[in-house]
Amino acid sequence: MKETTFVLAPDSFKESMTAKEVCVAMEKGLRKVYPEAEYIHVPMADGGEGTVQSLVDASGGRIFTKEVTGPLGQPVTAKYGILGDGTTAAIEMASASGIHHVTKETKNPLITTTYGTGELIRQCLDKGIKKIIIGIGGSATNDGGTGMAEALGVKFLDAAGNVLPRGGGSLEKLATIDVSSVDPRLQEVSMIVACDVTNPLCGDNGASHVFGPQKGATPEMVERLDANLAHYAEIVKRQLHKDVRDIPGAGAAGGLGAGLLIFTQAVLQRGIEIVIEYTGLREKVAQADFVFTGEGGIDFQTKFGKTPYGVAKAAKERGKKVIAVAGYIGEGIDTLYGEGFDAIFGIVPGAGELEKVLAAGPQNVERTCENIARVLKFSE
Amino acid sequence: MKETTFVLAPDSFKESMTAKEVCVAMEKGLRKVYPEAEYIHVPMADGGEGTVQSLVDASGGRIFTKEVTGPLGQPVTAKYGILGDGTTAAIEMASASGIHHVTKETKNPLITTTYGTGELIRQCLDKGIKKIIIGIGGSATNDGGTGMAEALGVKFLDAAGNVLPRGGGSLEKLATIDVSSVDPRLQEVSMIVACDVTNPLCGDNGASHVFGPQKGATPEMVERLDANLAHYAEIVKRQLHKDVRDIPGAGAAGGLGAGLLIFTQAVLQRGIEIVIEYTGLREKVAQADFVFTGEGGIDFQTKFGKTPYGVAKAAKERGKKVIAVAGYIGEGIDTLYGEGFDAIFGIVPGAGELEKVLAAGPQNVERTCENIARVLKFSE
Repeated sequence: MKETTFVLAPDSFKESMTAKEVCVAMEKGLRKVYPEAEYIHVPMADGGEGTVQSLVDASGGRIFTKEVTGPLGQPVTAKYGILGDGTTAAIEMASASGIHHVTKETKNPLITTTYGTGELIRQCLDKGIKKIIIGIGGSATNDGGTGMAEALGVKFLDAAGNVLPRGGGSLEKLATIDVSSVDPRLQEVSMIVACDVTNPLCGDNGASHVFGPQKGATPEMVERLDANLAHYAEIVKRQLHKDVRDIPGAGAAGGLGAGLLIFTQAVLQRGIEIVIEYTGLREKVAQADFVFTGEGGIDFQTKFGKTPYGVAKAAKERGKKVIAVAGYIGEGIDTLYGEGFDAIFGIVPGAGELEKVLAAGPQNVERTCENIARVLKFSE
Repeated sequence: MKETTFVLAPDSFKESMTAKEVCVAMEKGLRKVYPEAEYIHVPMADGGEGTVQSLVDASGGRIFTKEVTGPLGQPVTAKYGILGDGTTAAIEMASASGIHHVTKETKNPLITTTYGTGELIRQCLDKGIKKIIIGIGGSATNDGGTGMAEALGVKFLDAAGNVLPRGGGSLEKLATIDVSSVDPRLQEVSMIVACDVTNPLCGDNGASHVFGPQKGATPEMVERLDANLAHYAEIVKRQLHKDVRDIPGAGAAGGLGAGLLIFTQAVLQRGIEIVIEYTGLREKVAQADFVFTGEGGIDFQTKFGKTPYGVAKAAKERGKKVIAVAGYIGEGIDTLYGEGFDAIFGIVPGAGELEKVLAAGPQNVERTCENIARVLKFSE
């Protein structure tokens, strides 16, 4: 009889385990019941936090750090990854320009900048990278990606020809975009943007109105930032002949979506799809008898592009059995059974504080997977 | 194809669900996946709290109440059950003479009495009962079952021929046991005593030393109570020619074990074995494809006579698959896999307060059983 093959493709369990650690715990539990089985680890992510780690882990790549300019101009140490192929890089914009780099007191989307994200991109160019996967969730910025572009040689000038201060607040004075000094290597790099939001750059559903307040914008600031991004889009359209204003996703990350579309060879894609592609999940799943996935929490929202949903879909394309585990089972998981999930189990052993539960993640995953395996074994 | 048969034999989930409610929740979950299956409910208990309810539920019997004498002489409303056969009764001594009827301030094993338990037995005799199953856990008493016997006509007299005050504290004055007026029907009733402890009546492992302190005995009271029970056993041996002092279980419930052995047709049996017998579990399990059990908590101690252990053993005798669910999964469940358990799952959906978890018991059991069923279905 052919040995059973398990593909283990969980997301991280936030604040408890990386995706890779979840894989290890899953295998440990399953192996007690299936000691001779084959275990294929595919640590996953959905384009948000943990995506770089996942792509690096799945491809046998490496994490690097680089000091760059933070959202408030302060130096921050950002991480990026180079995948196992040596020519693809992975970046999370939040690592350079994320909301965690500002405080409740200092957050101010009039001045926060994506400059550090541009520096990370430049660093990749310096390393000869040919393809950059960039996750753009968790930004502290509302600058339309102008900071990112500036770091790569674009000049944003006022009517007097002076370079504008960084941040979305100064874009009302934008008169000219000078791309004559842009890094030429940028045109030879494909930019795969992990983007799960469909917001346009401006308007009621735009970057400023929808995401501005959580970045510290008052109602007056929201109006000003929105008008500034509209003005920016107008100048871009007139001078660079690109109309990005209403492209779904242009409003992601304070308009960094738009900035990437304007100044780089960007393609926007759903985060989970990118991860599925660059981890080779579909090929690996093809060999599986059972696919295990999971995430810190699973509920009805899981089907809006979360990792376990993407994994379940990909596995079901091949008719595979899919079992998910989670630290928290929320409302509406019934709606997932029709979406590729065969079964979903909580891992928590009883009532208890979150802190303890987070700390006990590995043994809880292990125990739960062992018991699932014990039931799977009935069919032999 | 023959329809799948599920036997559902959980204990209660303490402070959350009766065993019967657990059965209902289990079926609800399983039925979503196996709508045509047969479901046999066998609400279980282990001889402790919930045993009367379980035996009544499993046999289609009925619960009655009766006002009796509480451990401190106060009136208390006690419950007892008459099983579906109409001739077997079930009593929990704690319902009449339990520790929950005294407070931290009033507990005093020198004076607490099992008289009310005797009244419950007499009530059963009045109803023409032929067999009484009696659970003796949770007592507030240390009277050697003398109160129980007194309620049934036995007289405990001092040297002057006066009836002793109730309670273990007065037994030092015991000179004569007068059984001339004992209820004659008592000899025609079999008494099945659910008893999981093996403590003798007296000595270091006896009722007073081991269980006295939790009933409020000071070290001095323990010595006195122990000496009194030894004196009592001596009188019994001399006058009634029964030597119960060292019988394992004689020390249960402050010596009520001994009292039942002395004055009734008592047989001590492990609680879970009694419940298995009187619920007809073995016969029901014989028809099962899968047996589900469970309890509020499952850990390594489960194998010391708890319900799920008894159920798993009984099911394994017939080679059945056994799956357990619990609100709390504790240490050492690995040791249960060799003892009849095929798999054990927690039902709690995530970190959270005990109160909420207890309240959500039914939906958690339902969801977990549904997902187990979804995996069971793989084998079809």
